Amino acid sequence: MIADLPMEPFLEVIGVFVGALSGALAGVRKQFDVFGILSLGWAAGLGGGMLRDVLIGAVPPVGISDWRLVATALLGGLVMYFFHPRLERARRVVVLLDAGALALFTVVGAVKGLEHGTTLMAAVFVGVLTGVGGGVLRDLLTGEVPVVLHHRQLYAIPALIGAIVIAVLWEAGVASPTAALAVVAGIFALRVLALRFQVQAPGPWPGLRRDGR
Amino acid sequence: MIADLPMEPFLEVIGVFVGALSGALAGVRKQFDVFGILSLGWAAGLGGGMLRDVLIGAVPPVGISDWRLVATALLGGLVMYFFHPRLERARRVVVLLDAGALALFTVVGAVKGLEHGTTLMAAVFVGVLTGVGGGVLRDLLTGEVPVVLHHRQLYAIPALIGAIVIAVLWEAGVASPTAALAVVAGIFALRVLALRFQVQAPGPWPGLRRDGR
Amino acid sequence: MIADLPMEPFLEVIGVFVGALSGALAGVRKQFDVFGILSLGWAAGLGGGMLRDVLIGAVPPVGISDWRLVATALLGGLVMYFFHPRLERARRVVVLLDAGALALFTVVGAVKGLEHGTTLMAAVFVGVLTGVGGGVLRDLLTGEVPVVLHHRQLYAIPALIGAIVIAVLWEAGVASPTAALAVVAGIFALRVLALRFQVQAPGPWPGLRRDGR
Repeated sequence: MIADLPMEPFLEVIGVFVGALSGALAGVRKQFDVFGILSLGWAAGLGGGMLRDVLIGAVPPVGISDWRLVATALLGGLVMYFFHPRLERARRVVVLLDAGALALFTVVGAVKGLEHGTTLMAAVFVGVLTGVGGGVLRDLLTGEVPVVLHHRQLYAIPALIGAIVIAVLWEAGVASPTAALAVVAGIFALRVLALRFQVQAPGPWPGLRRDGR
Repeated sequence: MIADLPMEPFLEVIGVFVGALSGALAGVRKQFDVFGILSLGWAAGLGGGMLRDVLIGAVPPVGISDWRLVATALLGGLVMYFFHPRLERARRVVVLLDAGALALFTVVGAVKGLEHGTTLMAAVFVGVLTGVGGGVLRDLLTGEVPVVLHHRQLYAIPALIGAIVIAVLWEAGVASPTAALAVVAGIFALRVLALRFQVQAPGPWPGLRRDGR
Repeated sequence: MIADLPMEPFLEVIGVFVGALSGALAGVRKQFDVFGILSLGWAAGLGGGMLRDVLIGAVPPVGISDWRLVATALLGGLVMYFFHPRLERARRVVVLLDAGALALFTVVGAVKGLEHGTTLMAAVFVGVLTGVGGGVLRDLLTGEVPVVLHHRQLYAIPALIGAIVIAVLWEAGVASPTAALAVVAGIFALRVLALRFQVQAPGPWPGLRRDGR
């Protein structure tokens, strides 16, 4: 079964942990209280998967029912709660881990959609939503415009490409744990290379004149 | 079957397209990147229907599984992405198309609820939520207070009246494609007349003294 | 059956009513129109329960299908719409009623989760989400950062403790209406005592140096 990626549970736990770090950090910056900080960690680490599960009817979602994932998210929140002065300086590591989480969440999400019998296109959507949904929820809950929609970095686009590749492999009947892991690596590489070489997604097409807003 | 409105698929596609235009325009105004602009188009064009489908248990929702509707939303987003300098001047046409989308989404949503065996009241809710949900999602994702809640134009109220009429017709056993189409026309007319004569919904009741906030 | 709390329907109606008052008041303060004010009342009074129902698969959620609860939410909204100048001065009463609603929603939500066969942990989540979800939705729809995440009052924490107690009692097989009612009273008492003695949840751990943001 494709979902049985080598090291998949281990990788998913890392993804949730990193997502929780990013959420809890957003809560720290907004001076939330301890409950708010841990909630943000939970929402950012597990929100994408919860959105996926609600959309494909896999309820209750793992974000409230899988104790290992919930414990991981809380642990990530607690680590950031106590050690944020140091962790803020380790930004580069967090960005790398976040790229790994994006890659893994996307592939796991798309595969879970396919295994639930969704169409290929729906699987692509749930893959991308799993990858970026936690960050969107984090931003909405801290009163920010979701960064994935406007930051112009290549973030969702590598996820989208990876999810499409997964769907194509599945349709072709050649999906395998190895293939899935290769897609994880590919999304991660695209994300990291885009950061390294500052590749940007374009803003609104300028047209014949500047929009002026 | 009442859902078989004459020209219904055609009309729904128009609704999704217009919703996507409005969402993508909001993304353009916020200087989102191309992924953000297309995402906003998708959210605004299909968000109401996705909310409806999650609430009635029709998962995965059409917004991620019906390729015609998804393609339509992406097309609307792309059109706005490339042609926003011109389309912004065609505001009157977009307002009219939006009134049509509101009318159609509301009726299609209420009927889909009834066909899923919801209560009459739940069908009214899902009808109105289908009609206004995409715009609410668009506003939340761009950091705005949902315009339908505060702009004082008659927007949701025509949808509410129309959804109630659909529920009453259904209960009376006289629902038909023709009746449904008449309700679509009625919502559209109410919306357009309210715009034309600037009928407004009242703000907070002033009471014995002004609220002062 | 544990859900048959003595006076439970009566108490739940009070919870919805108080939640609707708080939502409609937020709409009044933002100068929403009458539709927006009633929508906020509905969202705040019934949003927590709707979130719970979607997460456990109990669709359509009671927030759109139970006419008694919907009517109660609309009544709360209308009362605030007309009488907000007076009700704003009755803040102390509203805070007390709100503590009661929190307590009751949490217990009802956790029990409903358990009766739907969720895990103990998932039941704790849906209990807390039922208790605080309406307020979160109210805040998001009015463009505010959810107050429960940052106000540092003990609000969600009493709910969390109460939901855990419910889950433990259920697992131990000693859940009963009387026990559930005692937990309601306990959450209420914790919330009121925290207010009375201004007990606060801590903000971000200061660490070795101040965060500086």
